[in-house]
Amino acid sequence: MQVKEIIRQALMEDIHTGDITTNYLDLEPVTSIAFMIAKAEGILAGVDVARQTFRELDKDLKITLYKKDGDRVKIKDEIMRIEGKAASILQAERTALNFIQRLSGIATKTNAMANLIQGTDARILDTRKTTPLLRELEKQAVRIGGAFNHRFGLYDMILLKENHIRAAGSITEAVSRVKMHNTSHKIEVEVTNLQELEEAISCGVDRVMLDNMPLDEIKTAAKKYRTKIELEISGGVNETNIQKYARSGVHYISIGALTHSAKALDISLLFKE
Amino acid sequence: MQVKEIIRQALMEDIHTGDITTNYLDLEPVTSIAFMIAKAEGILAGVDVARQTFRELDKDLKITLYKKDGDRVKIKDEIMRIEGKAASILQAERTALNFIQRLSGIATKTNAMANLIQGTDARILDTRKTTPLLRELEKQAVRIGGAFNHRFGLYDMILLKENHIRAAGSITEAVSRVKMHNTSHKIEVEVTNLQELEEAISCGVDRVMLDNMPLDEIKTAAKKYRTKIELEISGGVNETNIQKYARSGVHYISIGALTHSAKALDISLLFKE
Amino acid sequence: MQVKEIIRQALMEDIHTGDITTNYLDLEPVTSIAFMIAKAEGILAGVDVARQTFRELDKDLKITLYKKDGDRVKIKDEIMRIEGKAASILQAERTALNFIQRLSGIATKTNAMANLIQGTDARILDTRKTTPLLRELEKQAVRIGGAFNHRFGLYDMILLKENHIRAAGSITEAVSRVKMHNTSHKIEVEVTNLQELEEAISCGVDRVMLDNMPLDEIKTAAKKYRTKIELEISGGVNETNIQKYARSGVHYISIGALTHSAKALDISLLFKE
Amino acid sequence: MQVKEIIRQALMEDIHTGDITTNYLDLEPVTSIAFMIAKAEGILAGVDVARQTFRELDKDLKITLYKKDGDRVKIKDEIMRIEGKAASILQAERTALNFIQRLSGIATKTNAMANLIQGTDARILDTRKTTPLLRELEKQAVRIGGAFNHRFGLYDMILLKENHIRAAGSITEAVSRVKMHNTSHKIEVEVTNLQELEEAISCGVDRVMLDNMPLDEIKTAAKKYRTKIELEISGGVNETNIQKYARSGVHYISIGALTHSAKALDISLLFKE
Amino acid sequence: MQVKEIIRQALMEDIHTGDITTNYLDLEPVTSIAFMIAKAEGILAGVDVARQTFRELDKDLKITLYKKDGDRVKIKDEIMRIEGKAASILQAERTALNFIQRLSGIATKTNAMANLIQGTDARILDTRKTTPLLRELEKQAVRIGGAFNHRFGLYDMILLKENHIRAAGSITEAVSRVKMHNTSHKIEVEVTNLQELEEAISCGVDRVMLDNMPLDEIKTAAKKYRTKIELEISGGVNETNIQKYARSGVHYISIGALTHSAKALDISLLFKE
Amino acid sequence: MQVKEIIRQALMEDIHTGDITTNYLDLEPVTSIAFMIAKAEGILAGVDVARQTFRELDKDLKITLYKKDGDRVKIKDEIMRIEGKAASILQAERTALNFIQRLSGIATKTNAMANLIQGTDARILDTRKTTPLLRELEKQAVRIGGAFNHRFGLYDMILLKENHIRAAGSITEAVSRVKMHNTSHKIEVEVTNLQELEEAISCGVDRVMLDNMPLDEIKTAAKKYRTKIELEISGGVNETNIQKYARSGVHYISIGALTHSAKALDISLLFKE
Repeated sequence: MQVKEIIRQALMEDIHTGDITTNYLDLEPVTSIAFMIAKAEGILAGVDVARQTFRELDKDLKITLYKKDGDRVKIKDEIMRIEGKAASILQAERTALNFIQRLSGIATKTNAMANLIQGTDARILDTRKTTPLLRELEKQAVRIGGAFNHRFGLYDMILLKENHIRAAGSITEAVSRVKMHNTSHKIEVEVTNLQELEEAISCGVDRVMLDNMPLDEIKTAAKKYRTKIELEISGGVNETNIQKYARSGVHYISIGALTHSAKALDISLLFKE
Repeated sequence: MQVKEIIRQALMEDIHTGDITTNYLDLEPVTSIAFMIAKAEGILAGVDVARQTFRELDKDLKITLYKKDGDRVKIKDEIMRIEGKAASILQAERTALNFIQRLSGIATKTNAMANLIQGTDARILDTRKTTPLLRELEKQAVRIGGAFNHRFGLYDMILLKENHIRAAGSITEAVSRVKMHNTSHKIEVEVTNLQELEEAISCGVDRVMLDNMPLDEIKTAAKKYRTKIELEISGGVNETNIQKYARSGVHYISIGALTHSAKALDISLLFKE
Repeated sequence: MQVKEIIRQALMEDIHTGDITTNYLDLEPVTSIAFMIAKAEGILAGVDVARQTFRELDKDLKITLYKKDGDRVKIKDEIMRIEGKAASILQAERTALNFIQRLSGIATKTNAMANLIQGTDARILDTRKTTPLLRELEKQAVRIGGAFNHRFGLYDMILLKENHIRAAGSITEAVSRVKMHNTSHKIEVEVTNLQELEEAISCGVDRVMLDNMPLDEIKTAAKKYRTKIELEISGGVNETNIQKYARSGVHYISIGALTHSAKALDISLLFKE
Repeated sequence: MQVKEIIRQALMEDIHTGDITTNYLDLEPVTSIAFMIAKAEGILAGVDVARQTFRELDKDLKITLYKKDGDRVKIKDEIMRIEGKAASILQAERTALNFIQRLSGIATKTNAMANLIQGTDARILDTRKTTPLLRELEKQAVRIGGAFNHRFGLYDMILLKENHIRAAGSITEAVSRVKMHNTSHKIEVEVTNLQELEEAISCGVDRVMLDNMPLDEIKTAAKKYRTKIELEISGGVNETNIQKYARSGVHYISIGALTHSAKALDISLLFKE
Repeated sequence: MQVKEIIRQALMEDIHTGDITTNYLDLEPVTSIAFMIAKAEGILAGVDVARQTFRELDKDLKITLYKKDGDRVKIKDEIMRIEGKAASILQAERTALNFIQRLSGIATKTNAMANLIQGTDARILDTRKTTPLLRELEKQAVRIGGAFNHRFGLYDMILLKENHIRAAGSITEAVSRVKMHNTSHKIEVEVTNLQELEEAISCGVDRVMLDNMPLDEIKTAAKKYRTKIELEISGGVNETNIQKYARSGVHYISIGALTHSAKALDISLLFKE
Repeated sequence: MQVKEIIRQALMEDIHTGDITTNYLDLEPVTSIAFMIAKAEGILAGVDVARQTFRELDKDLKITLYKKDGDRVKIKDEIMRIEGKAASILQAERTALNFIQRLSGIATKTNAMANLIQGTDARILDTRKTTPLLRELEKQAVRIGGAFNHRFGLYDMILLKENHIRAAGSITEAVSRVKMHNTSHKIEVEVTNLQELEEAISCGVDRVMLDNMPLDEIKTAAKKYRTKIELEISGGVNETNIQKYARSGVHYISIGALTHSAKALDISLLFKE
């Protein structure tokens, strides 16, 4: 689904057959001004998604952005100003906030991790452990936070895991088979020890994923093979140990928690009285 | 969107034009057996969504459930067994896990909160601060975790907030207006002090939301009005202070973090060798 | 489906691969003016749906509304004026009329019923006996006509019918079970005699539906319980007997015929020569 | 939209995020048997749509049809038997009935009209005055009732109305223009007097629509031109005058009320105790 | 699907989760001017589809059309000028070209065939051998190229083929049966010899399709029956033999290759430096 | 759109409100057997799409495949056998054939090209010049024919074209910019001479596209850089000159005509009498 369609469906999910509070109040239409305000410190993502949400609900709402994706906000910072029919603002409010809070939460968590490894040569990658239907937006939030995107899905990169390799017989056989068909996508192979790593290198793949390898072994691998192949580690990395891994010499550290366990950034809407 | 359609879209998001790893491997179809295993302790939710995800991808997969929604799992507990074409299991794996991990994360967090207030008369409510497009599933996870659902959207309950009341002129006027049209949905009013609370009661509404009221005032309100109206408190409640609020005598405590800031429960898929 | 989407689908249903009459005529585009005219007396509903239908087909059509939803029209009254490309007006004409005629038919029938019981304390409710896919619009037409909406679907109110009660064992057991989960929606129970009615009241439900009860019994019920619970009667009410029922003291009379058997209001489009 | 999709959307309209009555009752699944029963005399249409509605909701429901489209039912006649999970039957009940009641209402009204003109050479046609989104089903109900389908939309027949003719300059010019492009669809022309009728015949069109012509003139037209061209009359025909028109010698009488003003046929669902 | 929706889906097919080349370049937005240029001689079709494609991607693109559907272009002719954000032009370019190249290819091939039979009384018809999902657009391209549309699908004309006739027993029986229901669509019958042709005429159908009849027999048929019925020939007609068939006296020659085997017209986009 | 959805939409495009020929014939259902037969020599693709088309229309059709994707067929070869309701076979026939004919046409043309360069080290690539909405299927047909897939869209590979490079200032700057964000997709750069080629190599990209370079220069490039980088040529290659280009030493030759100008393979359906 396109972002535009996701926004439309999200609004329908909340409003459905109508906002009965507003409808039943039967008030004359009034113009209001509201401000989206940060209530916690963090990195913004989804600013434009929030803006589009208001506009999708009512294209006559006037929106002024004070902040943009990637900006760091402090408590009480104004993010945007919305002017227009009060009923429209109230009806889009929750959906717009749900988007920007979740995406900013991801950007904030990602940014914190990325800051921890500044100065090293390692880059943080996201995973496919994203919220169903929101992968595109969440992967964008990861980039905004300062990390990088692993493949978007099963369709844009080849990743030979243990099961694929076992089924083919060996790393060499598995890689040889996919190279019979592949010309345009990168090939990564999951390996569990140095011997497999060397086999992968000799097959000419683009990257290896060192799966739950001990730190010592990772360092050995990085020292010997860092210039020959992209090295990615995966599993068990968190705020407390990421620096050690980042200094091991690997190129990539992939972390599912960026997207599956980020806390929403606290943001709210305030009407000007 | 229906759950069935959400599952279909989530699979499409991941697979899109095809799983190139498996397609390019060009292997003879083999039958595999895989187990979904808990890697952390928690409460399950989304067991059936995961099952449906595998079946939507390949209706010939045979799935045996060992656990059901609401069950508490410990590390290494087997949740379900999947048997069928290895390629199908691999293609649905990530999407199925993304659903069950997120929903179980919500159920687990909810359950922890609910346990903290056991023995009190208060019930925990969720909010509309859910993931866009997943509200139905997330609200179900909240119920599974042992809490209760507030309204599903703007369409199934009337909630007069500060802005509505200001626009109408007074609580009394606002309630009177919606009663001109409403017959089938509950009416809740947001109040900020005892005077407004009394006005709401005198209008005959079903519930009031005590917005950021100090605990003392909440206790006073509960003592005097608990039997006359449903009392809900909202804002600033967390694991450390929920017991105090729950003992205040209010009926409901609504908590956005149940859905917007739960961590995914760690669950993975293991192939039987 | 959203109203906007219903309109789009309705236009596609009529136009599909193209209006061959206009396309094959190959005329230079001309600007025309047309008037939507009432050809029978009644209450309008769907005025804005008709307007949106023209605009969805051609956003350059200029539409001036002379009447609005809820207005009573007499034969020959002008409802709106449409100015723009003749081909566009001709292509949207039938679909726009189909909407406004049906919805005005419902509003007109509803209004006639509502007028019959003016001065009583009873309110007319609609039912779920609506046209598939048009429920939201038809329930709006009912409100415009002067009656009230019962639940929109199975999702926004609890209605325990005979079958539910029998399955649970008793009214008391059924209500107790739903209260274990419900916090935000009203509960109604179908009862067939005074004893069941009393049981429902003692369980603390919001409303009872007196199912095909004789008028005498209804009056007794209303006299004794009117202030304790909302009373709804259902079944067999029509233009000739509604006044008797309305004076019985019940709060609500639900009538399926408002939506399932209203005649379209005669409205047509006239081009200015 | 396909019929299958219409059914799916109609079920979603009613059930949306879930049937809270049944869900909250938390009962063990029980198997029930229900009968769909006629509560008024009429002609059935939509029997299979109702069956598909139950099956779409729960493909394990077992349905036995006792009657089929076109059958005449009397009060208390059993139409179908549904066996399966009680919750499934209750959830599909209203939607299934809404379809079959509306469509049988149309078939019944159509059949009554068709019976009135039996023995004449005239055939009754429907119009495009159908319920938005239900045209295919309603036109099917018309055929089941014993009448015939006019064009399905703007795309499958050419109908030159007054406005088209005026824009082209004359009937002759208008017909000549469409014949430059048309090869596969019938051409009908609206005429208001005998002179125009003769012009239409001389252009070689398939049918003329005599628009609000007085009965005498219609008879003259039929006598002179009945063998040269198909004659259709339109406007102002109802149960009381249709016989006179049918005996005038025209081929077709088109009647919008078949679809826009039919009353639903009373049909209900009874659970076997 | 509507044309608008086809365009939207086609853009999504190409862009999906985002144009990573442009996104990763991270350039300041620049305004560019590009020209769509013919690189081969031919007849244009789909000019407006291409224009809509650019506008669907970015409604701020300004497009000036130099040519319109049906125009003949020579190499280097400018077709349209697009001005706006360079990224937008680059993202819509391929999809817009894919539409206009394919449709112009069809118009060009159709036009060549039509020119070959100029001066005869025969008209070329297309078939249902179109690209799935693009039938409406391709049939439009055929009209633009100078030929005519056979039926759009199974729903807008009756064509009794060999199998239908065999199942009914005879042409006479088959036609009689469809006339029991049909009033508004043309009837065509497939015949294989003169005897069947005469039977078809005697049944009063609109057209016959002479299926793979030898030219001599076609000529005989045309001479005897040309004024009594529309004659269509089908199968085996191509650029080298069409003139002979066209001079045989038949009304229609249907050719599947117009749509299933046309080469794309070479058209490209050039940015102004 | 998923293949399943494309098939569904294609059937709806053809059948829409119903196959009036079959419906109006009102025959008893009969079981028929039909064979899909090749009427020209070629390579099959889309066999399973055709099978799915029949099954989507009527899941009770029994289909036996005699040939599979990639098989070479001669005239009169049987491809599949379809058994079931005659009406179902007739209704799906045209759509199923439209798919398999187009896709087999692409596979056949691709195969002919691939055969011409057998023995060389070059591989043929497709392009994004595919039929809107059918890209996935057409790219699959290309693989079946023996060539390889270039990127699927703008989202799964980076291709820096002349315009991107000009906007960034230089190849070096453009590549450096995209490498700031990209980790998981291949990078290709369009170059027009050897100097640019060398710059691209020094930037560390995966592939270069030699745009309309003269054959001599291509040979020089291949000799010097073939082992350092993937070389792709594009533009102006056809059946008559492909061998010269293939022997030049480049790795890839991309050809748009595979998908935009293939002729449908002649295949038809024959009913067993």
